[in-house]
Amino acid sequence: MTTRDQNLQTSFADRHIGTTAADQRVMLDAVGQPSLDALVRAAIPESIHAAPTERSSIPAAVGETEALAELRTKAARNTVRRAMIGLGYHGTHTPTVIQRNVLENPSWYTAYTPYQPEISQGRLEALINFQTMVSDLTGMATAGASMLDEGTAVVEGMLLARRASKVKGDAFLVDADLLPQTRALLDHRADAVGITLRAFDAVDGPTDEQLDGAFGVVLQYPGASGRIVDPSTTIERIHAGGGIAVVAADLLAMTLLASPGDLGADVAVGTSQRFGVPLGFGGPHAGYLAVRAGLERQLPGRLVGVSFDADGQMAYRLSLQTREQHIRREKATSNICTAQVLLAVMASMYAVYHGPEGLRFIADRVARTTTALATAARDAGFEVVHEHWFDTLTLRAAGRAASVVDAARDAGYLLHLVDDDTFQLSADETTTPDDVSALAHVLGVVDATVPAAEAAVRDAATGLPSDLLRSSAYLTHPVFSAHRSETRMMRYLKHLADKDYALDRGMIPLGSCTMKLNAATEMAAVTWPEFANVHPFAPREDVEGYLDMIGDLETWLAEVTGYDTVSLQPNAGSQGELAGLLAIRGYHRSRGDVDRTVCLIPSSAHGTNAASAVLAGMKVVVVACDEDGNVDLGDLRAKTAQHADTLAALMITYPSTHGVYEHDVREVCDAVHEAGGQVYVDGANLNALLGHARFGDFGGDVSHLNLHKTFCIPHGGGGPGVGPVAAKAHLAPFLPAHAMAQDEDRRPGSTSGDRLAHAGGPVSAAPYGSPSILPITWTYVRMMGLEGLTRATEAAVLGANYIAARLRDAFPVLYTGESGLVAHECILDLRPLREASGVTVDDVAKRLVDYGFHAPTMSFPVAGTLMVEPTESEDLAELDRFVDAMLAIRAEAAAVERGEWPADDNPLVHAPHTAASAISGEWTHPYTREQAVYPVPGISARKYWPPVRRIDQAYGDRNLVCACPPIEAFA
Amino acid sequence: MTTRDQNLQTSFADRHIGTTAADQRVMLDAVGQPSLDALVRAAIPESIHAAPTERSSIPAAVGETEALAELRTKAARNTVRRAMIGLGYHGTHTPTVIQRNVLENPSWYTAYTPYQPEISQGRLEALINFQTMVSDLTGMATAGASMLDEGTAVVEGMLLARRASKVKGDAFLVDADLLPQTRALLDHRADAVGITLRAFDAVDGPTDEQLDGAFGVVLQYPGASGRIVDPSTTIERIHAGGGIAVVAADLLAMTLLASPGDLGADVAVGTSQRFGVPLGFGGPHAGYLAVRAGLERQLPGRLVGVSFDADGQMAYRLSLQTREQHIRREKATSNICTAQVLLAVMASMYAVYHGPEGLRFIADRVARTTTALATAARDAGFEVVHEHWFDTLTLRAAGRAASVVDAARDAGYLLHLVDDDTFQLSADETTTPDDVSALAHVLGVVDATVPAAEAAVRDAATGLPSDLLRSSAYLTHPVFSAHRSETRMMRYLKHLADKDYALDRGMIPLGSCTMKLNAATEMAAVTWPEFANVHPFAPREDVEGYLDMIGDLETWLAEVTGYDTVSLQPNAGSQGELAGLLAIRGYHRSRGDVDRTVCLIPSSAHGTNAASAVLAGMKVVVVACDEDGNVDLGDLRAKTAQHADTLAALMITYPSTHGVYEHDVREVCDAVHEAGGQVYVDGANLNALLGHARFGDFGGDVSHLNLHKTFCIPHGGGGPGVGPVAAKAHLAPFLPAHAMAQDEDRRPGSTSGDRLAHAGGPVSAAPYGSPSILPITWTYVRMMGLEGLTRATEAAVLGANYIAARLRDAFPVLYTGESGLVAHECILDLRPLREASGVTVDDVAKRLVDYGFHAPTMSFPVAGTLMVEPTESEDLAELDRFVDAMLAIRAEAAAVERGEWPADDNPLVHAPHTAASAISGEWTHPYTREQAVYPVPGISARKYWPPVRRIDQAYGDRNLVCACPPIEAFA
Repeated sequence: MTTRDQNLQTSFADRHIGTTAADQRVMLDAVGQPSLDALVRAAIPESIHAAPTERSSIPAAVGETEALAELRTKAARNTVRRAMIGLGYHGTHTPTVIQRNVLENPSWYTAYTPYQPEISQGRLEALINFQTMVSDLTGMATAGASMLDEGTAVVEGMLLARRASKVKGDAFLVDADLLPQTRALLDHRADAVGITLRAFDAVDGPTDEQLDGAFGVVLQYPGASGRIVDPSTTIERIHAGGGIAVVAADLLAMTLLASPGDLGADVAVGTSQRFGVPLGFGGPHAGYLAVRAGLERQLPGRLVGVSFDADGQMAYRLSLQTREQHIRREKATSNICTAQVLLAVMASMYAVYHGPEGLRFIADRVARTTTALATAARDAGFEVVHEHWFDTLTLRAAGRAASVVDAARDAGYLLHLVDDDTFQLSADETTTPDDVSALAHVLGVVDATVPAAEAAVRDAATGLPSDLLRSSAYLTHPVFSAHRSETRMMRYLKHLADKDYALDRGMIPLGSCTMKLNAATEMAAVTWPEFANVHPFAPREDVEGYLDMIGDLETWLAEVTGYDTVSLQPNAGSQGELAGLLAIRGYHRSRGDVDRTVCLIPSSAHGTNAASAVLAGMKVVVVACDEDGNVDLGDLRAKTAQHADTLAALMITYPSTHGVYEHDVREVCDAVHEAGGQVYVDGANLNALLGHARFGDFGGDVSHLNLHKTFCIPHGGGGPGVGPVAAKAHLAPFLPAHAMAQDEDRRPGSTSGDRLAHAGGPVSAAPYGSPSILPITWTYVRMMGLEGLTRATEAAVLGANYIAARLRDAFPVLYTGESGLVAHECILDLRPLREASGVTVDDVAKRLVDYGFHAPTMSFPVAGTLMVEPTESEDLAELDRFVDAMLAIRAEAAAVERGEWPADDNPLVHAPHTAASAISGEWTHPYTREQAVYPVPGISARKYWPPVRRIDQAYGDRNLVCACPPIEAFA
Repeated sequence: MTTRDQNLQTSFADRHIGTTAADQRVMLDAVGQPSLDALVRAAIPESIHAAPTERSSIPAAVGETEALAELRTKAARNTVRRAMIGLGYHGTHTPTVIQRNVLENPSWYTAYTPYQPEISQGRLEALINFQTMVSDLTGMATAGASMLDEGTAVVEGMLLARRASKVKGDAFLVDADLLPQTRALLDHRADAVGITLRAFDAVDGPTDEQLDGAFGVVLQYPGASGRIVDPSTTIERIHAGGGIAVVAADLLAMTLLASPGDLGADVAVGTSQRFGVPLGFGGPHAGYLAVRAGLERQLPGRLVGVSFDADGQMAYRLSLQTREQHIRREKATSNICTAQVLLAVMASMYAVYHGPEGLRFIADRVARTTTALATAARDAGFEVVHEHWFDTLTLRAAGRAASVVDAARDAGYLLHLVDDDTFQLSADETTTPDDVSALAHVLGVVDATVPAAEAAVRDAATGLPSDLLRSSAYLTHPVFSAHRSETRMMRYLKHLADKDYALDRGMIPLGSCTMKLNAATEMAAVTWPEFANVHPFAPREDVEGYLDMIGDLETWLAEVTGYDTVSLQPNAGSQGELAGLLAIRGYHRSRGDVDRTVCLIPSSAHGTNAASAVLAGMKVVVVACDEDGNVDLGDLRAKTAQHADTLAALMITYPSTHGVYEHDVREVCDAVHEAGGQVYVDGANLNALLGHARFGDFGGDVSHLNLHKTFCIPHGGGGPGVGPVAAKAHLAPFLPAHAMAQDEDRRPGSTSGDRLAHAGGPVSAAPYGSPSILPITWTYVRMMGLEGLTRATEAAVLGANYIAARLRDAFPVLYTGESGLVAHECILDLRPLREASGVTVDDVAKRLVDYGFHAPTMSFPVAGTLMVEPTESEDLAELDRFVDAMLAIRAEAAAVERGEWPADDNPLVHAPHTAASAISGEWTHPYTREQAVYPVPGISARKYWPPVRRIDQAYGDRNLVCACPPIEAFA
């Protein structure tokens, strides 16, 4: 035991776990268990319970200082060179005011997805700024609240095109100058859903033959090679047949070039990385997807829109949520769950800080710098392959490419080698005349002085084609002009953060979301330059520190889940799911089992399971649950029998989405295996298991984990996420690989070396997904050790059972295991309350805001319920504060039930109450102003004031507005 | 011009300066000036105006990225070794949650001194935690809110002893085992005020002869050599004669050892550095001073106490402010102005986080580690000189000391060489068994394995004397037990920050305080390990980066002020003043002018001027001001004539504390020089001059600057500050030096080398004062360049004149220069308003809180006025918001004047209004709830809610409570 008794400095676990030993004794009494050990042994079925490994790969825990020191050693093994590789990833200056006040500020990074819009107005405003920025720059009507990366955004664009197209064919036309990683993703994803890709050269356009049966086209603008081709002709031709045109556009270039919207595109996609988001060895960054008018309701992912609150005040919320995968289940057209909110906020604030003329200035300087480089290259005898350019040059000289790239690397610059004769380089915001001079030297220009480079950049014209110059305005909304001084920007960020409820204010007891502590030490390394400023396609010798850390995590995560190998590539839980299912698909096909496409999914499953299965080319068959909420073994056996020849997989969440350790999970897994299927265990609830049971031990073949749940990556207001996929050895060859992975055994087609090779198609644009946030998880595991992780599980399970025990009399706990215990979360059934009093789940959730809480998960997995997950990080006082609030709300509902307050005029139905609503005007309610906003003693000392009252969701969906509203709207 | 036109990335000045060119045109129109150039030429007397130097030592401005890159290069030239030098500076682990949420959070670091207590409850609570921690650990009744460092705290202890003592003599007894830097400070400071020091050995105690005429004694506990002597006997003996006993105690040791209070001391002093505050090459850290009951009113510096607000709610505020130097002027007994609030907050939070048993555990481990080292030393044949120890060992072996210290350095450890035979080492919180093993190797222990070291530390006893073990309890207040998980601590820090108004909410227009932007880039380097983890007495080769940066600053600051040399040692403005006056004193005495002790000070001067003069052994003579607020030249000439033979100096602030560029400043300076005096120009208002005039050019011989005003070091809620002293060459030999300075020409007695030597006595404990925050100023100057600094001055002067122009009709502007213009601040005369309506300055200041503002400076330098300094960082919208608020308040006062609202029941007299006061209970006022808290349209969207109402200052002074009140007090 690493405890205070031995060495205080190393007991990070004591800081991470909110309850002390004394607290836990009080809680165990309430739960009726003699000890933590007894609790977990009673709760977790004996058939799956396993003590932690004696000889773990996870080293004994160290303290904050030691962990950071070890991480600094790894960081020192990365080499930061000026990355001019381009290919969708560009150097950028993150304004320090944004880094400090967003990326390093818990008020932003510990926030949850804005499903409770009344307490999320700050980040919703930041996201609508993002949507406005994207729709303005791309010239499209509506942009979503961000995508995972450019590659997956193009995949979503392809899928959108198929469903929106009038063409019934299965062919999708692909610009041959597409980013290579995007193309690889399209290949893998198209194959799974029966789409055929047809590549064409952008200058020639697709042939008529190619156009035949093509539901859509994607064009890269500017192309991956830097070439700039007017996409209008191809767009017109695809439109002529009723198809959909997708343009993958560089946002910075769009400040100078005619936008996709100007040119007639239906869909624009891309990334906002170069708007102030560090390279981070590939991610996380915010991708984007925007559509023309008429396609709004086809958008995948999240969309922020405008509506009004109960006082008629304008307010933001998520629009059209019924589109989302978790609602539509197997009818979903996308499995996109999360966004990249924290990164989208950063990118949008970059645009707010620079404004339209600032962005244009940056783009213009990048373009002139590129021209200066082109001139130098010509002077040195290189052929500049394309006539026009924005920031990227393709250069050619017979047989000399490799030696130039090598020489550049020695000089501190990374270029992109295309072939023996050809290489590329890209300028960006960070490229200085010093760099131009140094590169000119590398190219062989004799007299390449810095003053000469300065003059060259200053005097250069851009290399843009004159007939494609932008004339339309952008970022004209006042928000993009109002915050130009650092003082203003700091205050704007504070002002927005002040509106929101995040973990820094109190508990966010969201069932299935595991909103635990994101410790400051875990976050520290994310902004170190050695992690932040690395290009995803940097050479292997530059990224040894990253690979080492990733290797540690692969080993550790495999061990704690009982699997043989782990891929960290999926950059969201949904993508981990998809990667796991695609691995199962690949496995069956490799054995000739091409008909094994049926995926069994329990009725209690999260909707994303079904959506991912569909996108992996599977057919979903639902398995019933019994009245205790467990998988109905009889129905399962019936379904496996029925689909014996076509069974691909079962997806099961463990503990279940009902928050219960199902007793028969081994039998369930065995039944699937006997029928020739694979078992996919959804790892969303791993926080109830770590150190006590392992998916791989009780029957799982593959799982995804959510590092942003169990492993402390902050939710960031709705992303980033990391969703590693863990699998048994037989599935390893089908796990995601990437052609540009620095590890040879992580490339498609690779075979085993020292460790199991991953050789499947990619699911993310970057080889290792979102590596810049992996130091968070690495530090967490390093500071907890296996023993700390095990203790955390116990504390999490105790917390949930404590809440269940204390609230059971007021709100029935819907499901428990055989022992009467829940796992790490519990479902409170509010349906009896509604029947008795008319008070809804919504009323209770919003009333909790008045009490200073974020609501638990509403109506998932069962409508009319609240699912509460306290996590191990909450302390007893906070748990009690929550319980007391719920009991007080129950008492308020009882007053409604008794008729003391009318059903349409009581503090529940009017919740939440703003300060203004309690202060302004006459008070006409049957409850007092104090009862409205100070429902419990002492709350005024720590009162959180929601900025708006209950928001009219339906109005916003009927009257869709998804960009910054005019200032007058606030009047 | 570095502007957007040339290179957007480098125009940090455009981000720092809040007003755009377009804004400035609007403002110039309001002021009636055609251009910025015309404005400054009209405002600044032609006789002193000087264009910026053509060839400046300050390089052209660079952008954020480049500045940080240059600073990283400097940082890389520091070598961070494990510092075991001790001598009052110890390694410590800063809990990351405190670093991120306090030191890196603008809500804490951009706050001002809590003179407006209603909007400062968060930091006041943190400070009362600090006071409670210190008084508990030292066993004293009352502790102040922090001192500048341990050395100056001992000086203050000595001065306190003199005034509280019944002994009328001038002798002060000094433990020979005092920290050497403390002793040096005492020497220098005692000499100036006529105190004689008498050193004695702690074991033997002072002789009777020494005791005769001694008003007090100071003991180091444990001693600098690590020796632990029971101070009781000496305390009893000094008490017997009516003297005062001061004990300089190590706070960590006090968790194990009987406290000064237990042992009968009257005063305890020391530092809280090792409570989580990085070494920082010597500072800033929070010193402390605590006293037994009966001496509270003798405390120098700031003291937080408890009182009640208008609703009877408990509230914190600064107590006994009439003690302070700015009130008592030449009658002051201390010139201490600022505290080290930000560092005191960190130290107090370290205690809150660890709690009493955590601190005790840390201390115990340090003590056991020391014992393990003692054992190893003995095993290797060294003599362990003292019988008992806490953390420090004095080791002896004939002739071997230097070689051991050298070998340790090669192994990565810094020890303290005492003489050829003797050296010292100190263990601390960061010392691990690995370190013990490595050091044992260095000492020559053959079999010094890490496991052996682990066992040795585990099994060791402490080296404490059994008759001095602590039995009294400490940190028993619940706050020291309630916040042990990181989640709790994060929320506590957020909760406190939420109560406060800092620059991240809005303008703090405090005249004479220059609350400008503290940019995130400027703050970035403070927490880099290469700056944070350096011991002040590290060898020169380890601190080249620091010395280089300090050298840059000395050169740059000398240039912009027109002086020949600068010392960065003074760690507060008041200490800079004192250092400058002591330099003048030294200069006169070096010329035999021992009678030159008269210091002329204009009646308008800041009170600290007079207090510092007294502490420099001078006699203050006040010079009158004329009706325009300028120095009365006639009176000046009369006074210089009257004191012709004894004139030491004139202190003058320029621009004056009235915010005016006095026309005749050259004549004033000339008159003083003619009489043989030196001219001290107080640099508090340098923000009105930078780039446009230089003190040294118009007659100054010496000045102090406030880096926390003009040069962007944040106020931190009331410290840290840095107050460099800049002087002409003839004063250089008398500027502060330090025996342990790494630069030879910064040691006492040194003579000129390449640059002017400083050779006076020290004024701070560390050779370079508070170097860890100097990167802030370095980065500011580097990113602004001289041209940016010049522009900032213009913007600041324009802002003040704009406010004066817009408010002049509502509130008379008390003083202006000959041109009718003010400098960088303006005094609004509220006395006519009070006469007409009864509305006071206090009412207006508190009402501004309801409008969302921090009040301007109240009743300084003229009672009944507000002094407004907007600084260059505020934008036009914020300036207008302030002006509009003042005009609205004027209109409210007019309603009182007209009798529409009673004098004792109106929104002014009841301001500020909390949310609860506007919501709870019946509303009986003649104004509405909305008028109370939402006085202007739109304010509800950005409402700042003060946590308490107007605080009863008198009650708190009459009923002094300066430690954490019991929880019941909040009921």
